[in-house]
Amino acid sequence: MTGTAPAPFSADTYRARMERAARAATDVGLAGLLVAPGPDLVWLTGYAPPAVTERLTLLVLAAGRTPTLVVPALEAPDAAKAAGAPALTLRDWTDGVDPYAATADLLGAGGRFGISDNAWALHLLALQQAVPGTSYAALTTALPMLRAVKDAAELDLMAAAGAAADATFEEIRKVPFSGRRESEVAADLADLLRRFGHDQVDFTIVASGPNGANPHHEAADRVIRHGDMVVLDFGGLRDGYGSDTSRTVHVGEPSDEERRVHDLVREAQEAGFRAVRPGVACQEVDRAARAVISDAGYGEYFIHRTGHGIGVTTHEPPYMIEGEELPLVPGMCFSVEPGVYLPGRFGVRIEDIVTVTEDGGRRLNDTTREMVVVD
Amino acid sequence: MTGTAPAPFSADTYRARMERAARAATDVGLAGLLVAPGPDLVWLTGYAPPAVTERLTLLVLAAGRTPTLVVPALEAPDAAKAAGAPALTLRDWTDGVDPYAATADLLGAGGRFGISDNAWALHLLALQQAVPGTSYAALTTALPMLRAVKDAAELDLMAAAGAAADATFEEIRKVPFSGRRESEVAADLADLLRRFGHDQVDFTIVASGPNGANPHHEAADRVIRHGDMVVLDFGGLRDGYGSDTSRTVHVGEPSDEERRVHDLVREAQEAGFRAVRPGVACQEVDRAARAVISDAGYGEYFIHRTGHGIGVTTHEPPYMIEGEELPLVPGMCFSVEPGVYLPGRFGVRIEDIVTVTEDGGRRLNDTTREMVVVD
Repeated sequence: MTGTAPAPFSADTYRARMERAARAATDVGLAGLLVAPGPDLVWLTGYAPPAVTERLTLLVLAAGRTPTLVVPALEAPDAAKAAGAPALTLRDWTDGVDPYAATADLLGAGGRFGISDNAWALHLLALQQAVPGTSYAALTTALPMLRAVKDAAELDLMAAAGAAADATFEEIRKVPFSGRRESEVAADLADLLRRFGHDQVDFTIVASGPNGANPHHEAADRVIRHGDMVVLDFGGLRDGYGSDTSRTVHVGEPSDEERRVHDLVREAQEAGFRAVRPGVACQEVDRAARAVISDAGYGEYFIHRTGHGIGVTTHEPPYMIEGEELPLVPGMCFSVEPGVYLPGRFGVRIEDIVTVTEDGGRRLNDTTREMVVVD
Repeated sequence: MTGTAPAPFSADTYRARMERAARAATDVGLAGLLVAPGPDLVWLTGYAPPAVTERLTLLVLAAGRTPTLVVPALEAPDAAKAAGAPALTLRDWTDGVDPYAATADLLGAGGRFGISDNAWALHLLALQQAVPGTSYAALTTALPMLRAVKDAAELDLMAAAGAAADATFEEIRKVPFSGRRESEVAADLADLLRRFGHDQVDFTIVASGPNGANPHHEAADRVIRHGDMVVLDFGGLRDGYGSDTSRTVHVGEPSDEERRVHDLVREAQEAGFRAVRPGVACQEVDRAARAVISDAGYGEYFIHRTGHGIGVTTHEPPYMIEGEELPLVPGMCFSVEPGVYLPGRFGVRIEDIVTVTEDGGRRLNDTTREMVVVD
């Protein structure tokens, strides 16, 4: 209902981010950036509209010009209260006015603009029609790393979110699993994330037994039984920055095969982590983790990429995936989360958020990666 | 985290809706429809992905062809469980594959496609590039009334959501207002909406005293005082269908002016409601309500349109706004919600959801529209 919770930065921080973004746009040949409500807008201005509707809200950034936020008149009082508002010009429009025509002059003489990935097609199509001579590129295509490199204050917030997720794991491993529904354990996870300071819970995956073989299974009515492997994958936003960690636990003592697969995924996760250092291409992190699993003959059961970036969202560039040649840069934060999924039987996933340091990587999650036995 | 809660319809209902949508597309000269996660997809298939991410999920509809849902492999098991899945072909794609190339053949020989308003710019731009010879129109521009006319089962769900919102008002008028923060009363509203069956609370506006003059003020730290007018505007989804009602209450006895403005808004709301009947243009509902307020000299203080459609979302076409000439059709559901906003002083808004019947309109909210005095 309220979208991403804004983080507490100063107007100067937002001003600096907007200037940097506008310069980055110029550097890649863009005439400017068009920023829609969502994580880009929160990161650049601290503003999250009360609701995202069909009414146009759009930040227009171009080098050397004052950032201008086009906003429905109804929502102008909210926008004026945003932490970044002192660094913005607000341009409000009233029901009945064509907001695209009212935006056109901000796009100057035309050219190519970057636009938020999640901007609505409704608005993009209207701009394409209303402002001849413009073309558009998705922001993560044009400037994939715009939000990727976190500054010191952001890293502190990322670390705090990671610590809160770790505290959640330390508590959830003590609760009873056997005989309870996945959805009940998921509710415990959500309560714990909130207790440890999360404002927004994005996912609480509890995937037991055969459900664990579906990487995106959330949590269902299945009653967890003695002998089950259980994939736990949970996170959300705390003070506006994301957490995301996975551990796979076992109800009672695991079988030899279960232990072997768990060890394999742990080694793959370690290999992915060890591949992290400045200058390495993202795909190398994927390759390092995948090689461990493939070499053991389980390659076909690792059916997703190794990781995704995280920041003011729990899912953003950079992606640790084959084909992604962008180099790692200190301050980037992303997941390293290999898994093995055996259809109809069980799954294992182990995930930490890792940030790139000057000489390697630092984990922002650090609960044990050994298999934990629960009751 | 879970998006719009799907309503409980059969696969046959979803099949019929998809066939109707594809025919409607043909009728307006479109080659097909591209439907993104969100209300359009829920309405057509019953499917709400576990999360909306940068991974492409897209339903492709074209007359005479089996509806095909392009879905990330990770999410295919969830999609297969959707109520509408039996009426669909699932086409899953795996990380590392170009999902737009994998979608291109579904767009056949090209042409013009309608695309969900809220489809991401990321996906639209990629389709524009990947499939030459295609052009796109926003779904609410091309087929604004696709979801607007509700069938009997949907009207029952809309009526139930409205009754739950009314039950919420009957309880909230009994709680203490004076001395409590707006945010506390808002929390009571959310609890009540859930208690009366809402799965999702979309807004709980409590705008007291001068805050009432901002139509989109949500609820803040302001402590409500004796003598305040308080605008209450709340709603969400119950069994997948929306509620949205507003009443303006007064803490203690109102002044003559407050009573006069409230009476004026009530008369405007009544005039808007009485304008509702099949064949009347949407803008006539706005004009009828606005005339009452303008004639009394308060026209400049009614700063928004008179209403918006509602269904599987709480905000959709048709819009009751000057310039909207589309005719009302039996089964449409929308708000009639005039207001007067006196800057720095107070606001009044009165809102019911109204559905068009064969010979007029029927209110789906029916708590008293007289001013209620609260404690």
